[in-house]
Amino acid sequence: MPQPAGLAIEADDVRAAAERIRPLARRTPVFTSATFDAEAGVRTHFKCENLQKGGAFKIRGAANLVLSLPEAARARGVVAYSSGNHAQATAIAARHVGAPATIVMPQDAPRSKIEATRSYGARIVTYDRSRESREEIAGRILQETGGTLAPPYDHPMIMAGQGTSALELLEETGQLDALITPVGGGGLLSGCATIGKDLYPAIRVFGAEPAGANDTFLSMLAGERVAVQASTIADGLRVPKPGELTFPIVRRLVERIALVTDEEIRATVKFLLLRLKILVEPSGAAAAAAVLFRKLPGGINSIGVVLSGGNIDFEDLERY
Amino acid sequence: MPQPAGLAIEADDVRAAAERIRPLARRTPVFTSATFDAEAGVRTHFKCENLQKGGAFKIRGAANLVLSLPEAARARGVVAYSSGNHAQATAIAARHVGAPATIVMPQDAPRSKIEATRSYGARIVTYDRSRESREEIAGRILQETGGTLAPPYDHPMIMAGQGTSALELLEETGQLDALITPVGGGGLLSGCATIGKDLYPAIRVFGAEPAGANDTFLSMLAGERVAVQASTIADGLRVPKPGELTFPIVRRLVERIALVTDEEIRATVKFLLLRLKILVEPSGAAAAAAVLFRKLPGGINSIGVVLSGGNIDFEDLERY
Repeated sequence: MPQPAGLAIEADDVRAAAERIRPLARRTPVFTSATFDAEAGVRTHFKCENLQKGGAFKIRGAANLVLSLPEAARARGVVAYSSGNHAQATAIAARHVGAPATIVMPQDAPRSKIEATRSYGARIVTYDRSRESREEIAGRILQETGGTLAPPYDHPMIMAGQGTSALELLEETGQLDALITPVGGGGLLSGCATIGKDLYPAIRVFGAEPAGANDTFLSMLAGERVAVQASTIADGLRVPKPGELTFPIVRRLVERIALVTDEEIRATVKFLLLRLKILVEPSGAAAAAAVLFRKLPGGINSIGVVLSGGNIDFEDLERY
Repeated sequence: MPQPAGLAIEADDVRAAAERIRPLARRTPVFTSATFDAEAGVRTHFKCENLQKGGAFKIRGAANLVLSLPEAARARGVVAYSSGNHAQATAIAARHVGAPATIVMPQDAPRSKIEATRSYGARIVTYDRSRESREEIAGRILQETGGTLAPPYDHPMIMAGQGTSALELLEETGQLDALITPVGGGGLLSGCATIGKDLYPAIRVFGAEPAGANDTFLSMLAGERVAVQASTIADGLRVPKPGELTFPIVRRLVERIALVTDEEIRATVKFLLLRLKILVEPSGAAAAAAVLFRKLPGGINSIGVVLSGGNIDFEDLERY
């Protein structure tokens, strides 16, 4: 089924991404849990991107972008601004092809994240969140080096790459009634919706957003991109506004954005840890929380859930 | 390769167990981690029994025993005394075949374990650790009911069942230089050694024991079963003495018992959680600790490690 004109990606872009990233991204396992299903009232298939290389789905998009660059562009390097999983993913992908990576991070980012990103061979440029703009700093570096920007979500190669998680999931499960992913900027959700609807046109696609960062929820209501002041434990989903390229796809293919509270996210992280024995970070657990706390409409007997990441500081765990 | 005469099980018992338990036990995944390998200096393949049904490898032995009982014996029921994973495993296996299960547990066992065991449909009989003997209580129940005792390790069906974890692991990895499992009573280690040495006679087999519960280590030195006062964070390995049936196999097939401290076990639980994103209980992490802290002799480039369980209370995690 070809996607309607005017959308940034179509299903074949996701299929091409799956081929491209194969040497770099891991094919993560799909788990089920009778205990979870009994609580949630629906047969749930978890795509474990917390077990992905770098600890999150982000390597899929970063690898797709970096591996598609011609040799000359690779040599000029890749630049990203992120304090989270996208930074590490970009560093890993760049190292894989021998491209220099520069990551712009706030100087108050958790030391563990800065160290992890540096350990993948990236150059770290820190900035003062209160006085400087990361976009300006990245822009200067790009001008000096002629390098390529790897944005966290609003780029066709990134979106197509993230969609490969749903492609792998549905290859393994076959047809499901529904599919749900967390929503930050919408890169993961737009990619997954694109391939999901292509494989199974009847599949119902949902996003899960923290109630304290409900920009996509509000944007769906308004029919246009709305900005919010995000405040949530789910740091990876603290995005003020849906992407320019991601939102039209989300709007067209996604049935509803389910909202979950920080408390629900915390309880879900704990449930996944103690029952499924896997560590999922708060952002990564948002979609599972929407299923566990029954935020979806009726008529859904089987669902695929992307557990999108597992990078969490040990000290944070103690607060659960 | 037939096992020497006089041992309680041989490799074909493990193969038969693998067939028998298929409807009930999960084929758990095998994980690798470049980060772990870099720290440990050896390519490590983790058999994730923490992701097993019931959260531990114990379902393999319990299922093998219960499924081998004739109908009449099943109807008379199964009895186990355990405050840990074997209790839950026996309850799950009994429920699967519709057999009544009675589990004798100390009245001060963690409420979560009692509740979990009850949730699998077992009858719980509690006793006062200071005044009563669990063996006597179980003996009375067996006399009254004519039921079957499911001992935690010292039984050929239990030992053969536990060995299926190594069978699956080696089927997936092919030949490895070495294999290591935690040692409590020796059910897991004796079963795994039996099948491992049969598949690959050159494989070097090790056990990992807490320094505070080093009964098998001392017994290997003495050449006979020695009892100790066990004290370790690894509650599943707090066994005073090797089994009567397990020890001759361990003595014959196992090269060495590696000792790990509680501190090393704790650090390994944390490493597996934060880097591999999986929850492993202290007992389940003992073999991984021996590899991570380089307690094994040289010349080993590849090793299979059984992560034997993942049942841990959330409150305990905070102490890491």
